[in-house]
Amino acid sequence: MNRELVTKLLNELRQMPIYDAHTHVMADRPVASHLGDLLGYHYFTELSNSSRGRPVPLPEDPGARIDYVWPHLPQLKGTIQLDWMLGISEAFLGIPRGDWWTKSQKQITERANAAITAKDYCAKVWERSNIKKAYMTNQFDEDLSKHGDARLVPCLRTDDLVFNVDSANGIKRLETCTGETIGENAQAFDRAVAKIFDRFAKWKMGYAALGLPPSFVPDEDVSTTAAGQVLKHAARGEKLTPEGKKVWASFMLDRISAHCARVKAPFCLMPGADRGVYAHGVPSGQDLFRCDGHLRGYDAMLNKYSDVRYPIMVVSDTAGLELVAQGWIRHNVYVFSHWWYANNPADIRRELRRRLDVLPRNKFIGFHSDGYWLEFLLPKFNTYRLQMAIVLAERIEESQVAPSDTLEPLDVQGALALAERVLLRNPDEIMGVK
Amino acid sequence: MNRELVTKLLNELRQMPIYDAHTHVMADRPVASHLGDLLGYHYFTELSNSSRGRPVPLPEDPGARIDYVWPHLPQLKGTIQLDWMLGISEAFLGIPRGDWWTKSQKQITERANAAITAKDYCAKVWERSNIKKAYMTNQFDEDLSKHGDARLVPCLRTDDLVFNVDSANGIKRLETCTGETIGENAQAFDRAVAKIFDRFAKWKMGYAALGLPPSFVPDEDVSTTAAGQVLKHAARGEKLTPEGKKVWASFMLDRISAHCARVKAPFCLMPGADRGVYAHGVPSGQDLFRCDGHLRGYDAMLNKYSDVRYPIMVVSDTAGLELVAQGWIRHNVYVFSHWWYANNPADIRRELRRRLDVLPRNKFIGFHSDGYWLEFLLPKFNTYRLQMAIVLAERIEESQVAPSDTLEPLDVQGALALAERVLLRNPDEIMGVK
Amino acid sequence: MNRELVTKLLNELRQMPIYDAHTHVMADRPVASHLGDLLGYHYFTELSNSSRGRPVPLPEDPGARIDYVWPHLPQLKGTIQLDWMLGISEAFLGIPRGDWWTKSQKQITERANAAITAKDYCAKVWERSNIKKAYMTNQFDEDLSKHGDARLVPCLRTDDLVFNVDSANGIKRLETCTGETIGENAQAFDRAVAKIFDRFAKWKMGYAALGLPPSFVPDEDVSTTAAGQVLKHAARGEKLTPEGKKVWASFMLDRISAHCARVKAPFCLMPGADRGVYAHGVPSGQDLFRCDGHLRGYDAMLNKYSDVRYPIMVVSDTAGLELVAQGWIRHNVYVFSHWWYANNPADIRRELRRRLDVLPRNKFIGFHSDGYWLEFLLPKFNTYRLQMAIVLAERIEESQVAPSDTLEPLDVQGALALAERVLLRNPDEIMGVK
Repeated sequence: MNRELVTKLLNELRQMPIYDAHTHVMADRPVASHLGDLLGYHYFTELSNSSRGRPVPLPEDPGARIDYVWPHLPQLKGTIQLDWMLGISEAFLGIPRGDWWTKSQKQITERANAAITAKDYCAKVWERSNIKKAYMTNQFDEDLSKHGDARLVPCLRTDDLVFNVDSANGIKRLETCTGETIGENAQAFDRAVAKIFDRFAKWKMGYAALGLPPSFVPDEDVSTTAAGQVLKHAARGEKLTPEGKKVWASFMLDRISAHCARVKAPFCLMPGADRGVYAHGVPSGQDLFRCDGHLRGYDAMLNKYSDVRYPIMVVSDTAGLELVAQGWIRHNVYVFSHWWYANNPADIRRELRRRLDVLPRNKFIGFHSDGYWLEFLLPKFNTYRLQMAIVLAERIEESQVAPSDTLEPLDVQGALALAERVLLRNPDEIMGVK
Repeated sequence: MNRELVTKLLNELRQMPIYDAHTHVMADRPVASHLGDLLGYHYFTELSNSSRGRPVPLPEDPGARIDYVWPHLPQLKGTIQLDWMLGISEAFLGIPRGDWWTKSQKQITERANAAITAKDYCAKVWERSNIKKAYMTNQFDEDLSKHGDARLVPCLRTDDLVFNVDSANGIKRLETCTGETIGENAQAFDRAVAKIFDRFAKWKMGYAALGLPPSFVPDEDVSTTAAGQVLKHAARGEKLTPEGKKVWASFMLDRISAHCARVKAPFCLMPGADRGVYAHGVPSGQDLFRCDGHLRGYDAMLNKYSDVRYPIMVVSDTAGLELVAQGWIRHNVYVFSHWWYANNPADIRRELRRRLDVLPRNKFIGFHSDGYWLEFLLPKFNTYRLQMAIVLAERIEESQVAPSDTLEPLDVQGALALAERVLLRNPDEIMGVK
Repeated sequence: MNRELVTKLLNELRQMPIYDAHTHVMADRPVASHLGDLLGYHYFTELSNSSRGRPVPLPEDPGARIDYVWPHLPQLKGTIQLDWMLGISEAFLGIPRGDWWTKSQKQITERANAAITAKDYCAKVWERSNIKKAYMTNQFDEDLSKHGDARLVPCLRTDDLVFNVDSANGIKRLETCTGETIGENAQAFDRAVAKIFDRFAKWKMGYAALGLPPSFVPDEDVSTTAAGQVLKHAARGEKLTPEGKKVWASFMLDRISAHCARVKAPFCLMPGADRGVYAHGVPSGQDLFRCDGHLRGYDAMLNKYSDVRYPIMVVSDTAGLELVAQGWIRHNVYVFSHWWYANNPADIRRELRRRLDVLPRNKFIGFHSDGYWLEFLLPKFNTYRLQMAIVLAERIEESQVAPSDTLEPLDVQGALALAERVLLRNPDEIMGVK
């Protein structure tokens, strides 16, 4: 590693503001109220559950969650996940990282909670993190009409409409929040969804988002009648069959693309996670992926809705180059950043290098945090920034070694321009109602 | 990066001649006639189409193709693909890379075209590139009897015989060029194919080649009768069913192996591409791959034709180690170089390292360009040479750190001997009628 | 590469003892009796068979095996596999690596055999390698009651019970060694398996182990009756149908988990290899893998037997992160080390980096050798140690560049503590009857 060059780049990257194109931050409560909110983040609870070698159910109480995680911290030392917590500790709680290994749980908790409950805590997190924009994950029936902070951008999460119509009380919730009478009527369901899109568009939505299982291949051209046959069962409170689920999901997927086309919003696909696989897992710690998950089920939709922007992120490492190839040739696929399991230094570095090498610089987004509290954005971006500094330094060095008939010269300034492009400008350009 | 070592190795690698085991260079027109031929290369047109965010059909005229690509060059700056164009510019057109960012489209086009139309242009490209041999991609009915340049080696592309018999007017073309009466007779079809092989063998063919879809698993032991049942439909101008297509492809795949065995030529397999997936793509910019594409459908054929050499290249990154494993144990599988999407620095580097670490040094080919014009060979080889220099330097350094009970000592001379083996000698040894 | 740092780490790693959690070393004959035993290791014979370009059957006689391999050594020069042989040569045979390229086959053979037949040879291999424990691979009917060397830990290989019941004379062998009358009775078969487990538990077994084909998805809840229907055919000497094989394997897989739960031993899964694919291969050189092989068929079993430890290794590179994700959330999945084709520097390095970055440090095993003779442990561990030194040095450097809000500081001492954890302590903690 060229330390001098990496240090220089890293320092500059850390000065940049944050545009975070995908988070789970809540509009009305963007920061933690208790250290247990932070240590209760599923990354820590799942690693603790895993590390102890026998499953223990996760308690609800924030204090009890600290008890749950604390004894396992020594096993987690050195992981990037714990580094995020310790980054928060240093940046916002005023507790040096080293204290976590020398002070008691009680001491750390008290100091952390004192910092968190200070009056200016939330403002401090915004300011120190230098966050300009963070895109949220909102359920379709959230009321954001009173939401006034333009830095937190509403995004419509559509999983309940597409995959959970029989389990998340979707029809009733949709009726309640739109005033439509839906019952067994797929057309009315779609009209209600249209209203939801209109409302989110008015709220200046970032995009519609959907998580999908690995290798999902929707049925093509599902009619409203066929969809209605399925909806009937859900309306009666029945669980759908796998076939029924697929028919409905295919219908809705198409409709959501259509609504995105209509309101000129992007449709963000997040394929690859199998939900609820690990029976003894903590909440959000039960999902896995399969390495053979591919992206080729979306071809027909991507071709059909050629005027919709589709940012796509994948949970696996194996679909990384397949996604890059999509962004390379398809005008409406935007390569989104790293999510979950593939969000680790080795995989970040490989994907970033690939993207910088072969994609037009306006076709991919550098990083998003997927964070649940505003506090997580900064340390997660910092993990990425370090790897980005390493990759950019590598490319600078290669360009210095190679004659000009082989590589475009790249200096620190050029590298930072590229970083600004993919970290700051692209999220803004790709996302949003246009 | 050990700059001194990488620089030294790179300089030496750049002195080596080029043996390019797979290109699309044309026998009668190996170099461009217009800058638009070069900028019309599908890598640039597809990236431009992708970068602009809305699909625009590609014009035919070379000048119009420059218009198509030019506005998007700033977005492509820093990609390896554009580096190939700028490498051509510096090496053959006399236009420094920097001028592309400061001069007008008109100026660049005029200077480029002046260079291209100079009398000695073609000779200069040959000479400066130091190309000793380039293997071509020839359709079965090309007449190469007048082709006299031994540097351009004929290779028989068989896709139209195997996968496009119902769409590329294959039967008629085969009848015309061989004098056989085929009609619905699979045996006669095969006799005509035999004549094609005899002709290409007389022309000192490099190999027969075939592109195959991902995870293709041929039917075993398709009889001539069963094949004839399918051919009947194609002969009548009907489109084959997917099942019919598979029966015919399986039959032909076996026959081509048999003909390769007979004339003692290698059979090069290029599996993994899905053709025509992206509806709005430019020509050659509509194909993708899937990351779950595997190679295990060829087992029976590789076992059966144990005396045929099978160089295999893959379009994905995911099949890289699977291919290496094949080359490791199978005596008749030769690991071919990087193709298309996996031909980027990150993937080149990983695969080269794997191959150097575990394969006998006579079992793999370093690089091929896949270039459409002779001009592309040099810059594409230079991209590879840089990555090769980095990998070789890494191995030299590791051998210097590790005691002799752990790693074979490697110095610059030894590294270059290895490079010569896989870049110059292996293509010649593995390819060709023996 | 930071040579000074890598050298320092490597020297320390080489001082550590070896805990080898998976080998094929034989209890009664742990070291070679002839150079031909070592050069007859399948890695060398398969590379020789591959390198010569035409298949030649492997002779039985150790001397003839040397003849088989010797002429191909120049092609194998520089591979990690040959480095293992040359490491043995330097460490145990007193033959410097260079002599292999300058002395005759006869000279090398004679000197090697003289060393091997020396009286203290076996003791010397143990001592110089500093092996504390090596886990063996034992067939279910091996009699280890006289085995007295606690350094060689018995492990029960169950493939013949699960997948080869119709081909390896399993029923008869099981009857003979347990005294049970089995015939067509699945319950009796299971009782006999219980006795085997009791016996191995008494012998302080390390674990039960099983190799599985790629993407195996067992049938759930196979009844003893259904299993008996299949066993009937095997008992009559018939080959099972693919469906029958699957029913039986699913039944046995569940039973073995149950017996592991009962005797409190881990169940080590080794999924991914397709056996006997390459028809012309040398023994053990006929197996390949497919890059789409996933691990998701084990979900039900892993959930059901939540008190059984499951160390899992994979033969592919593609399932690497999927396995890491399993170890990350599942309390009873332990990420085992690199096996076969993925056991090469590029893949070792990527996986090690991933594991260090995201797994609790008590959830994975650094390395195992898979070696057939004790001699192979040291050089194979040394290959790994070099890559580990490189990865640890990289992490140390990153932690020095990154501020403390981003990365846990890591120095040489901390890095070595981590290495001791995963190389020495974890095998002991994860394996064994508890």
